[in-house]
Amino acid sequence: MKKHNYSAGPCILPQEVFDKSAQAILNFNDSGLSLLEISHRSKDFVAVMDEARSLALELLGLEGKGYQALFLSGGASLEFLMVPYNLMKENGKAAYLDTGTWASGAIKEAKLFGETVVVASSKEQNYNHIPKGYTVPTDADYFHCTSNNTIFGTQMKDFPSLEMPIVCDMSSDIFSRVIDFSKFDIIYAGAQKNMGPAGTTLVVIKEEILGKTARVIPSMLDYAKHIKAESMYNTPPVFPVYASLLTLQWLKNLGGIAAIEKINNAKAALIYAEIDRNPLFKGASAIEDRSIMNATFLLNDEAHAATFDALWKAAGISGLPGHRSVGGYRASMYNALPLESVQVLVDIMKELESKV
Amino acid sequence: MKKHNYSAGPCILPQEVFDKSAQAILNFNDSGLSLLEISHRSKDFVAVMDEARSLALELLGLEGKGYQALFLSGGASLEFLMVPYNLMKENGKAAYLDTGTWASGAIKEAKLFGETVVVASSKEQNYNHIPKGYTVPTDADYFHCTSNNTIFGTQMKDFPSLEMPIVCDMSSDIFSRVIDFSKFDIIYAGAQKNMGPAGTTLVVIKEEILGKTARVIPSMLDYAKHIKAESMYNTPPVFPVYASLLTLQWLKNLGGIAAIEKINNAKAALIYAEIDRNPLFKGASAIEDRSIMNATFLLNDEAHAATFDALWKAAGISGLPGHRSVGGYRASMYNALPLESVQVLVDIMKELESKV
Repeated sequence: MKKHNYSAGPCILPQEVFDKSAQAILNFNDSGLSLLEISHRSKDFVAVMDEARSLALELLGLEGKGYQALFLSGGASLEFLMVPYNLMKENGKAAYLDTGTWASGAIKEAKLFGETVVVASSKEQNYNHIPKGYTVPTDADYFHCTSNNTIFGTQMKDFPSLEMPIVCDMSSDIFSRVIDFSKFDIIYAGAQKNMGPAGTTLVVIKEEILGKTARVIPSMLDYAKHIKAESMYNTPPVFPVYASLLTLQWLKNLGGIAAIEKINNAKAALIYAEIDRNPLFKGASAIEDRSIMNATFLLNDEAHAATFDALWKAAGISGLPGHRSVGGYRASMYNALPLESVQVLVDIMKELESKV
Repeated sequence: MKKHNYSAGPCILPQEVFDKSAQAILNFNDSGLSLLEISHRSKDFVAVMDEARSLALELLGLEGKGYQALFLSGGASLEFLMVPYNLMKENGKAAYLDTGTWASGAIKEAKLFGETVVVASSKEQNYNHIPKGYTVPTDADYFHCTSNNTIFGTQMKDFPSLEMPIVCDMSSDIFSRVIDFSKFDIIYAGAQKNMGPAGTTLVVIKEEILGKTARVIPSMLDYAKHIKAESMYNTPPVFPVYASLLTLQWLKNLGGIAAIEKINNAKAALIYAEIDRNPLFKGASAIEDRSIMNATFLLNDEAHAATFDALWKAAGISGLPGHRSVGGYRASMYNALPLESVQVLVDIMKELESKV
C-alpha cells in the first residue's frame, strides 16, 4: 500500500534520495567501494562536501555575500551552546525570542554563558502564536529566534531588522520558502526535515561576525576552526552529508526554493481550508502564525478520535498524532511530501464528517 | 576487480553491513518506509538503539557492571572536551599520556579546563613507541590514554592500574582484541574503524564516576543527561547507529572479540613477518609496541616506490600510503579486512623483491 508519511522528523525525503544513497552504499561513484568504507579525505568525498556546501549557499541566495556553509554533527541542540560560545562576549548579553520547546532549549543553554534576555514569550498560551511588538535591547551581542515551531505549528512570517547579528534556528523550515536569508548572520538547521537524514547540521555563517568575544572556545565548538578546515575539522558524518547533497540536488532540479514554496503553499492551503471548513475540526495555532510545514489541529469532539484514527491508518497515513504537549493531530508537510498525500488526508477528514 | 581496502578510516566494513543497510534505506523492517524517513521515537528505531547499546556492553563484557553505553555524535574529537567537562574538577587536575596526534589533540582541549599533566610523551621520537615507566600524579581527577595510534602504528599492550578513573580513546582498536575493559571508567570510540560508518561515537561510562566536579555542563556535553535520555537526548544519527548495530551483530555472530582477535593476530603476524623478512622494507614503529590494526612500514630505498606503488595498485589495493607525518606505507587491518587481503599485499612485497 502507498504510504503517506507525516512524520515530524526525521521525515519523508525524495524517493530518488533513497534510491541513490542505497546505491552509493553498495558501490559509490562506480568505484567498487561502498560510500561507507572510503576515506573522508578521498577526492570523491571531498567533492561531495564541497558541492554540498556551495549548493546550500546557492539555494539560499548567499553565494558571494561573505557566508560560509558547514555540515557539522551534534544536531541543532549542539548549536544551542555553540552560538553563545562563539557570539556572546564575556559579561555580554544575548536576546532570545521564546516561541516553543526548541527556542526554550536554546535559551536554557545560553543562560549558562551570560545574561540572556527573553524579549517575548508565548509560553503562557502554550506557544499557540508568535509574539509580536517586542523590543530587543540594543546592547545585546546577538538576537536568536526559531523560524518554525514543529510541535506547535507556528511559523515566523516576519523577522526583525536589527543592528546586531541575527541568529535563526531554521531546523524545521529551511529550504521551504523564499526569505531574504541575507538578513541573518547565522542560520542553523538539523538536516532531518527538509535537507536529509538525521546526523548532520547545516550551519551558515556570515564570517565577519566571528572572533569578537575574547572567549576561549574548545576546538570542536569553534566555528572559525570548522570554516578554516572546510567543514572537515574531524571526520564528518559521511553518509548523512551525502544524502543531504542528494536532497539539495533534488531541490535544485525542481527549481529551487521558489518552486518548492509554491507546492508547500498549495499543500498548506489545502489542509488549512479543510480544518477551517470541516465542523469536526479546529486549528491549534493562531491563524496568522500558521506554519506551512506543520499543521496542528484538534477534533472538536474527542469521541470521534477512534473513528478518525482508524480511517487515516487504513489509508496508509503514518505519523499524524500531535505532540503530547498539544495533543490532537499534526500534519507535517515537509518539502518531499507530495500534494497527493495531503489530498488523501483531506478526503479522510471529509469522510469522517459524512460518517458521524 | 576484487578490492583490498586498507583505508585508515572510515574503513572497510563487512559486506553484509553494506547489503543490509542499503536494503533498510529502501524498506526498513518491511515497513514500506525508509530507515531515513522514520521517527527516531518510533518503536522500530528505539529497538535499534536499545540493542546497539546493550550489544556493545555485552561484547565488551561490561553488562551488569555499572556501565552505560551511549551512541553520540560529534566524533571522538567532541569527547576531547566532554571528558574534562564531566570529570575535571574546578581547579582540578588531569593526567594524560601523549602517544600521538589524537592524544595530543585531547591534551590541547583538556588544557582549556584546568591543569593538565602530560605524564610522558614520545613526541620527540615522532611517536614511534609507547612511553613506559611513567608516574601518574595521585591527585589527578582522571588519567587519559589512547589505546591505538592509527597514524604511527603503535598500540598500548598494557594499561596502568590506578586509583583514579581511567579514560581511554579506543577509536581505532575497540572490539579488536580481548582486554579487561572493566579497568576503564570511560571508553570512547568514533565508529568509523571497527564499529560502523562515520557519524556516531560510542561512549561507555561507569556511571558512578559522574556528578563529582561541581562544574556547570551544557546539556549536550553532559554524559548524565545522555544516560538519563537513553542516548536519545536529541535526534540521534539514525543511519550511523543502525549500521553500527549491524556491524556489532556481525561481530557477535563471528564469535565476539575473542574470535576476531585471533584473525587480527594472524593478519598482523603475516604482514610484520614480511616487513621483517623482506630486505626492501623496514617497520616504522618499535617492535614491542606494534599495532595489530595499523602496520606502518617504509622502503629502505625510496627509488623502489614507483614500482611498488604500481604493483599494489594493479592488485586492487587501495588506501596504503602512510600518513604524511610518517611517510611510507600503512596497512590498516581493521576487523572487516580479510586475511586474504593481507596475503595479497605480502605477495606484492615478495614480488617487488623478486623484481628489483
